[in-house]
Amino acid sequence: MRPNIKIDVPRLTGELERLARFSDAEAPAVTRVLFTDQDLKARSYLRRLCADAGLAVREDPAGNLFARWVGSEPHLPALGTGSHTDAIPFSGMYDGTVGVLGGLEAIRALQQSGWQPRRSIELLLFTSEEPTRFGVGCVGSRLLSGSLAPEAAAALKDQQGATFDDVRRGAGCRGELTEVRLRDGYYAAFVELHIEQGPLLERDGIPIGAVTAIAAPAALRVRLEGEGGHAGAVLMPQRHDPLCAAAETVLAVEKAAKDSGRLDTVATTGICQVHPGACNSIPSRVILEIDIRDTDLAARDRAVAQIRQAIAQSTTRRELRAEVEILNADPPATAAPAIVNAIQTACRELNLACQPMVSRAYHDALFMARICPTSMIFIPCRAGVSHRPDEYSSPEAIGHGVAVLALTLAELDNAIA
Amino acid sequence: MRPNIKIDVPRLTGELERLARFSDAEAPAVTRVLFTDQDLKARSYLRRLCADAGLAVREDPAGNLFARWVGSEPHLPALGTGSHTDAIPFSGMYDGTVGVLGGLEAIRALQQSGWQPRRSIELLLFTSEEPTRFGVGCVGSRLLSGSLAPEAAAALKDQQGATFDDVRRGAGCRGELTEVRLRDGYYAAFVELHIEQGPLLERDGIPIGAVTAIAAPAALRVRLEGEGGHAGAVLMPQRHDPLCAAAETVLAVEKAAKDSGRLDTVATTGICQVHPGACNSIPSRVILEIDIRDTDLAARDRAVAQIRQAIAQSTTRRELRAEVEILNADPPATAAPAIVNAIQTACRELNLACQPMVSRAYHDALFMARICPTSMIFIPCRAGVSHRPDEYSSPEAIGHGVAVLALTLAELDNAIA
Repeated sequence: MRPNIKIDVPRLTGELERLARFSDAEAPAVTRVLFTDQDLKARSYLRRLCADAGLAVREDPAGNLFARWVGSEPHLPALGTGSHTDAIPFSGMYDGTVGVLGGLEAIRALQQSGWQPRRSIELLLFTSEEPTRFGVGCVGSRLLSGSLAPEAAAALKDQQGATFDDVRRGAGCRGELTEVRLRDGYYAAFVELHIEQGPLLERDGIPIGAVTAIAAPAALRVRLEGEGGHAGAVLMPQRHDPLCAAAETVLAVEKAAKDSGRLDTVATTGICQVHPGACNSIPSRVILEIDIRDTDLAARDRAVAQIRQAIAQSTTRRELRAEVEILNADPPATAAPAIVNAIQTACRELNLACQPMVSRAYHDALFMARICPTSMIFIPCRAGVSHRPDEYSSPEAIGHGVAVLALTLAELDNAIA
Repeated sequence: MRPNIKIDVPRLTGELERLARFSDAEAPAVTRVLFTDQDLKARSYLRRLCADAGLAVREDPAGNLFARWVGSEPHLPALGTGSHTDAIPFSGMYDGTVGVLGGLEAIRALQQSGWQPRRSIELLLFTSEEPTRFGVGCVGSRLLSGSLAPEAAAALKDQQGATFDDVRRGAGCRGELTEVRLRDGYYAAFVELHIEQGPLLERDGIPIGAVTAIAAPAALRVRLEGEGGHAGAVLMPQRHDPLCAAAETVLAVEKAAKDSGRLDTVATTGICQVHPGACNSIPSRVILEIDIRDTDLAARDRAVAQIRQAIAQSTTRRELRAEVEILNADPPATAAPAIVNAIQTACRELNLACQPMVSRAYHDALFMARICPTSMIFIPCRAGVSHRPDEYSSPEAIGHGVAVLALTLAELDNAIA
């Protein structure tokens, strides 16, 4: 039986706005870095909303939050939905949060329709989808899916040198990281609602995207070391300036993406830290972080190889030391056709157009796809803008996404044997 | 009458080491930024040493410190010596400090010899020789010499947005910045003792350099603004990435210096700040700070023009906004032959070789030269290294410099009518 749902869009947008105020940046910008005070406040706020909805909330040792609506057959593998609430510095209020608060709203709408699930439905808030603090994205879903060794996660360090293990304990997470990995068959399916973070749905006037694959990201950290010195006193022929090699690297990153001949290849240098960082001092050390993505693994790896070669050439010529660390290099994920079908069915029931599409951005769903059938529901965002203060999805677009998510969960509860 | 001086080198090196411990970096690195706690502690330490030597200490409203040994004809214009104690991040322990503590030791040696000056001799500690905090170097000597308007100095902002006026008041400086400029004829001469910050004296085995000219520095702050966005979602043809333009600028800075055809042209990008600064976010704003120097003003200005043209070309092609602010662009200074002569005379008396030379680095003496006859005494430093933790001058080299300074002051007291 199809539940007759009603999405309370004003309530949901009010909650999104409330959540956006847990931020270390001035509105409309959002900065909410993992396990900072503002992040902990945002988590408390979400726990309270989940408890108000009658969900049983638990937190795992990595800080992943689970809020469960217990089904009539609670021994069956559950249906998972959710996303993240951490936000990179000076970003917007919809990335991740629409999938968390929207997931909660989908559950509330199903509850209020009188419909009862057979399987338990679980809302997830993943720890550290953003790599801001520890340099690696999707720490929570990597651990849940066994894609990151607990010891490796424990040893991750932030820029102040604090380990993930210390920081998560300081944030009140109990237990051991070895307990985080989910047992086989924990979830029957996972579906994540998210803003597109690209321009296609808005451009084509289509309210829903059903994600068939998630692009393959790789991240490099490059450490370039040379000789510092006084900017006035060291003559040009004597210099070994790592910022000049960093500049050549930044341009090589751009060129590698443009050279690939594929529109889907993108490459970005997002971090450039200069030591000591004084106007009258020749830099002695530069750290770059580089993000390279493609829907095709081989094309992405060709771009990575081209960048590494450019770094080697520049640093050899300039007599600098270079260290290239691969922070992550994950293969792309393919969505489960059964879930894509369920999304399409939900759209038909709601009379909403649905476009199968690729996710160019990187999501916890990428890792959940390793342990259960997974897909994502995309909604349009203005001009495709994300990770910026002017990121925006309309209440109408969000309402459509939540309705499709609710009916998809109901359809999956029915469809999966 | 030539005083018979004895420099207490162990006392002086002990004081230099004590001063180096007022630092926000781990030894041997020194970080001592204007009006931080460590800077204020260093200033207190110096005041105490000066008081112990019987000098009358005063502080002007900009935080310049003056410690006066009153001469037998105190109405005559005084003789000035001194330097700075602020230190850029992760630098060394000799830059500036040798001229301050060495200046004090020169005064103590003259006192202990029984010699009495006719003119008062004044030790100076200049505020903010380094541009670290406010982006402009030599704030103290610019104000003393009327080279910087008091209102402009008051309005300088640090990276936290605090004004120079607020910060100096917070540090306990009383009075108004309009009172800082010295009255005409305050000093009869100024001579600054400093490490060379270049390799020439060490290479040629010469203990003393007598500075005949100071190179002309210019500093630019470049603000590049583009479109941020998600590193996965914005395709390459849609990007307007200011870090790519910054990379082209860094390489253009290097090229402008190399293209000049003059060994004396140097150009450095020492600061590159990226906003928002996340691995998975396309930068939306980059701030560069660039330092360009030459002993020849026209050559330096040609390099500046070439850099500005490269910035304009890059940002036009990439459809970015660029703002170029000239933080300073000072003409070079010529030393007073009378003071160079006095230094040479002192060296002959001490049987030390003396090399007339140009200062490639930037000093408070550059601005003092605008209001009184000025020169500098250089001593060798290891491998010409400065602005680095491994900056080093031997106790012997420092002792020679202090002895030459003491006899130069005595010679000037005698020589100037």
